[in-house]
Amino acid sequence: MTYLFYSVPVAAVIALLFAWIFFRQMMKESEGTPTMKEIAQYVREGAMAYLKQQYKVVIIVFAVLAALFAVLAYGFGVQNPWVPFAFLTGGFFSGLAGFVGMKTATYASARTANATMRSLNSGLKIAFRSGAVMGLTVVGLGLLDIAIWWSVLQLFYDPSEAQNLVVITTTMLTFGMGASTQALFARVGGGIYTKAADVGADIVGKVEQDIPEDDPRNPATIADNVGDNVGDVAGMGADLYESYCGSILATMALGASAFFADGTAVQLRAILAPMMIAAVGVILSIIGIFAVRTKEGAGLQQLLKSLSVGTNLSAVLIAVCTFGVFYLLGFPNWWKLALSVLSGLLAGVIIGKVTEYYTSHSYKPTQKLAEAAKTGSATVIINGVGLGMISTAVPVVTICAAILLAYGFATDFVFSASTLSLGLYGISIAAVGMLSTLGITLATDAYGPIADNAGGNAQMSELDPSVREKTDVLDALGNTTAATGKGFAIGSAALTALALLASYIEEIKIGLQHVGRNVLEIGGRTVDTMNATITDIVSMYDISLMNPKVLVGIFIGSMMAFLFCGLTMNAVGRAASKMVVEVRRQFREIAGILEGKQRPDYTSCVRISTRAAQHEMVFPSLLAIIVPMAVGLLLGPAGVIGLLSGGLGAGFVLAIFLANSGGAWDNAKKYVEEGHHGGKNSPAHKATIVGDTVGDPFKDTSGPSLNILIKLMSMVSIVMAGLTVMLH
Amino acid sequence: MTYLFYSVPVAAVIALLFAWIFFRQMMKESEGTPTMKEIAQYVREGAMAYLKQQYKVVIIVFAVLAALFAVLAYGFGVQNPWVPFAFLTGGFFSGLAGFVGMKTATYASARTANATMRSLNSGLKIAFRSGAVMGLTVVGLGLLDIAIWWSVLQLFYDPSEAQNLVVITTTMLTFGMGASTQALFARVGGGIYTKAADVGADIVGKVEQDIPEDDPRNPATIADNVGDNVGDVAGMGADLYESYCGSILATMALGASAFFADGTAVQLRAILAPMMIAAVGVILSIIGIFAVRTKEGAGLQQLLKSLSVGTNLSAVLIAVCTFGVFYLLGFPNWWKLALSVLSGLLAGVIIGKVTEYYTSHSYKPTQKLAEAAKTGSATVIINGVGLGMISTAVPVVTICAAILLAYGFATDFVFSASTLSLGLYGISIAAVGMLSTLGITLATDAYGPIADNAGGNAQMSELDPSVREKTDVLDALGNTTAATGKGFAIGSAALTALALLASYIEEIKIGLQHVGRNVLEIGGRTVDTMNATITDIVSMYDISLMNPKVLVGIFIGSMMAFLFCGLTMNAVGRAASKMVVEVRRQFREIAGILEGKQRPDYTSCVRISTRAAQHEMVFPSLLAIIVPMAVGLLLGPAGVIGLLSGGLGAGFVLAIFLANSGGAWDNAKKYVEEGHHGGKNSPAHKATIVGDTVGDPFKDTSGPSLNILIKLMSMVSIVMAGLTVMLH
Repeated sequence: MTYLFYSVPVAAVIALLFAWIFFRQMMKESEGTPTMKEIAQYVREGAMAYLKQQYKVVIIVFAVLAALFAVLAYGFGVQNPWVPFAFLTGGFFSGLAGFVGMKTATYASARTANATMRSLNSGLKIAFRSGAVMGLTVVGLGLLDIAIWWSVLQLFYDPSEAQNLVVITTTMLTFGMGASTQALFARVGGGIYTKAADVGADIVGKVEQDIPEDDPRNPATIADNVGDNVGDVAGMGADLYESYCGSILATMALGASAFFADGTAVQLRAILAPMMIAAVGVILSIIGIFAVRTKEGAGLQQLLKSLSVGTNLSAVLIAVCTFGVFYLLGFPNWWKLALSVLSGLLAGVIIGKVTEYYTSHSYKPTQKLAEAAKTGSATVIINGVGLGMISTAVPVVTICAAILLAYGFATDFVFSASTLSLGLYGISIAAVGMLSTLGITLATDAYGPIADNAGGNAQMSELDPSVREKTDVLDALGNTTAATGKGFAIGSAALTALALLASYIEEIKIGLQHVGRNVLEIGGRTVDTMNATITDIVSMYDISLMNPKVLVGIFIGSMMAFLFCGLTMNAVGRAASKMVVEVRRQFREIAGILEGKQRPDYTSCVRISTRAAQHEMVFPSLLAIIVPMAVGLLLGPAGVIGLLSGGLGAGFVLAIFLANSGGAWDNAKKYVEEGHHGGKNSPAHKATIVGDTVGDPFKDTSGPSLNILIKLMSMVSIVMAGLTVMLH
Repeated sequence: MTYLFYSVPVAAVIALLFAWIFFRQMMKESEGTPTMKEIAQYVREGAMAYLKQQYKVVIIVFAVLAALFAVLAYGFGVQNPWVPFAFLTGGFFSGLAGFVGMKTATYASARTANATMRSLNSGLKIAFRSGAVMGLTVVGLGLLDIAIWWSVLQLFYDPSEAQNLVVITTTMLTFGMGASTQALFARVGGGIYTKAADVGADIVGKVEQDIPEDDPRNPATIADNVGDNVGDVAGMGADLYESYCGSILATMALGASAFFADGTAVQLRAILAPMMIAAVGVILSIIGIFAVRTKEGAGLQQLLKSLSVGTNLSAVLIAVCTFGVFYLLGFPNWWKLALSVLSGLLAGVIIGKVTEYYTSHSYKPTQKLAEAAKTGSATVIINGVGLGMISTAVPVVTICAAILLAYGFATDFVFSASTLSLGLYGISIAAVGMLSTLGITLATDAYGPIADNAGGNAQMSELDPSVREKTDVLDALGNTTAATGKGFAIGSAALTALALLASYIEEIKIGLQHVGRNVLEIGGRTVDTMNATITDIVSMYDISLMNPKVLVGIFIGSMMAFLFCGLTMNAVGRAASKMVVEVRRQFREIAGILEGKQRPDYTSCVRISTRAAQHEMVFPSLLAIIVPMAVGLLLGPAGVIGLLSGGLGAGFVLAIFLANSGGAWDNAKKYVEEGHHGGKNSPAHKATIVGDTVGDPFKDTSGPSLNILIKLMSMVSIVMAGLTVMLH
């Protein structure tokens, strides 16, 4: 059966190969006029300059943390010696995925604009294939890292011993912490960068001076376009790399422990399953990407259809193939486990659709929000906040149903302590299923900012307005098709976070062994630590909801979600204010900017965003690392589990709220721009611009960082479990 | 020892007596000029008309619920037969407290305005004493209801049996559900009413037409003033009645069960303690109220000082007296339990100070928020949201420390399953201590809207602007002194909610006995249900954080907090939009309004607010009742405890965020109005008005409703426990 494992590195290499091919194809295209090239070059330089600054900060943080882990491992002996290395590779690969994606995007935007001049279709192809470069790089690097570590660790820990399989998989989890740390910095830093520029540019440009978006007269416009690349592309790449690997690694760890008593053959099967599903997903993603074919001269509806064909095809195929994977691996309850995965996939589709319903201006909620603009910006804000909060109901209920179903199918609907590990495995593998076709869903996501930047390039290069109109169509197209991908990302994050809770308990067990507590007293019984069940550990540390430490943890976890959002939100507010002041200064002091006779000073705006992001990302990110450490040391495992579940509950709902409020404000503005309630430049339009501006940090900075925050806190707790049990 | 109980009804009667005296004193004052009387009459009529509508809705809901409980009690036998009656009296008294407070306030505002013409001091005295009417009515009615039920139930259940004391106290808890239900409707309905009018009046009046607040030319101005009375006064009265009784009742129930094994004498002591502390608190409040004395011609600083003297005196005295109460009751660990209470009091003071720091424009955060207005309304909103979210950190950490300390002092810092009941009793009694001086803290709270309305009356009656200026000073004074009271209210709500979690478990035990399960199988042992500990029930239903039902409950609980806020927020948005349309219509269609030549049609605006509130309050309120029922029936006790803790974690933090963002926006506007960043009518001022308007539903509708939501969900679960265990 182990020969099946080889499909994993093979799939990884195939993914990277196709990413390379798509990249070469894109690079062959022309970048257009000299002006277009020049602007693309500006954006590319700004993005690289920023990434360099970000990596400087990140390297320091990684060095400190790796040193800390080394001390814990080699000095105190409370930790697995592989942790520092696994942590570093996780961070490295995550950063690499974001870097490659961003590099591709900055090369692709001018080329997309140029191709769009020929036809909508050619533009779509370049943008989408460039997005696919990032999608395939993320899954390729992720699977490669997993495959390498799995192979290497087997050389050191004999996989024919059940306990060693637990050690290998829990060790591998710590590379998830590297990925999460990198992702948090990328998301927070990138998010602050992009929104400081965007908000600043919009306030002075659109609101005060009445000049359009991406107008070359606006000094912040290059910074805004750089921001799309470092925030929406590099940030998202690192983010989804973390999600992708996190779900696979958590499932592997759960598989090793859930089937601990059944012998290594059964364990191996459970460990291989998530890797195999992911490997199959890679191939299906590539098939999906090739299925996105359009005839020359295709209309909007046809393009939309062809994009949907790709993503839907992959989703349907993965649903079918899961049955095959579980069957092939010899699970006796193969079709039931596949139904667990199906529950997850279905939940993702529903969440995606609901998101679309609440945020697209084809539906009532956003249309009503646009109507609220008739009574000014205050009612737009109030209604948008209300809409976002209400929009959390169906996704939460859906994910709850998925949790119960995924657990239920895996355990024949026996909800009891004895089925716990198995049920959690079912939940976790559902998350893997949802993310397995990330290769294509990420392509539809990443292609949006590329099209957006292409539009920016077209505008700044003063190409014919029809080009901008076409790129806007491409962008809107992406928003629609990306809904399912986003639903999968949100839903799988919740499921993975649940799985990480269980992994934490496993890590506590390993930690107990590390500190020499090989026998435990639990409720009068004596239990070998190695054989202790999750329920044993839960009752040993009294991780029940009546324990005040757990309740205190829940409070702190809920608070962390809000505090983190508040810090990132304020960072954007502060940075945007600086940007506004600078842009106003340029308009005032540099004569002839507004008449287009004089170039504004783009670099000073790029510098403001870079500095702000670099400066502001440190505190919130460190908080996400330090708080779970502190809670673990002070309150022990009970406090940590409280922290993680409180953070998950509040953070998940808060993330949906912020994302949907932001999305709805954005589209309400577009709806007004389409001519409703007075159309462009009407008072209603101004009111929706305020809404859109407020929504920017909601949906692009604070909201998307929350998913990572939740998982990073889990990962930190997992890595610190050894020290925690030494003190508790 | 039981003779000590008589202090409770005596204190209740004294409170009501002084309320009556203060009311008579106030009524003796002159209501001023005919115009002032006329306007006061408008407001009074509007408020009464609205309350009538609200009570109509509430009566239907109460009738349906009481019928349901009757069926459960008499039809299925799964519930205590007293529940329907206890539920109804709780609702009645809560409503009565709000009604009396509001009636007093509507009589007091014109009199306050009139007295303020004489001197600031006279105005303060009338407003503050009128506030005290509400404060003392709330505590008086609360203690009276508790004393009556305690006496009556003893006639039916012999208090010399330990089990009967448990039955009596858990039965009494259900009158808390009546109070919570009434409070929720009052807060939600009143909150929607007042903010629809306020937001509507502000948008057209201040933003579009540049006329001042409370200008008689604004058609929504009477509705706005009515709103202050039905929302800020009647709503707050019902709200705090619920908190006050809830904390006492929960502590009584916990006391009966925590000392179950120690015999009825010890139990009685534990049951009497919260009632006694409350009774002492009543007397201290009255002392505090009389301590608020000012010399004629006192300046602002002196007034502020004299107000603080009153509240601080009561707070210090209650801290001291608690030692005496516990000693008098013969607790062996009397001073330790008093330290538990002290932890709570201290936490309340800290939360109050932090709230002040984040929301007062004497401090940096709000000043910086005002500065963000220089770059427009979008940055004001972003920064305000950020500020509110960040402001949750210290209060949450403080309350967590209070939880651990209150638990720790009560249990000699032994955190284990065996000390659980005792520790929770310590937490719960800390909440009682915090609310015991509600008589005076509520007076400082309720006096704000009275002063506000006095200002409105002065403006509309076109009195000399100096009167308005003085009432503004009074209002601001109240905001400062009310901080501690608010800190106590927020903190005690969290502690009480924790206690209610434990009470729920107790109610599950009673429920099990009701359905005839007198012996339980728990982890291989056989336990008499009567003697089962909290930990037994917890392990029987696997209320651990690894149980998927618990986790699903946490998700749904977190979501409920957001959904509920979203619904109330949107209700305000919708109603405010209608108000704006109507006000604009009047300005357009009724000639001469803006010149002051023609009276606007006030009643149409009153009608809009009344209808909107009546219509919009039903769905969110019913949701708060139905969801915990549904979760209990579907997921059992594990799901319910998850729901309640998720709701508590997310709801508590969300409530602080909303309250502080709203408060900071309000004061940032005032800061600009004081002449900063351009002063009144500058672009910065306009930007802060948008912030203030957005903050209105944050701080006065959605935020304050959350505390009640959290407790109502607990109360519903408690009442439905019998049916829940029948199915699980």
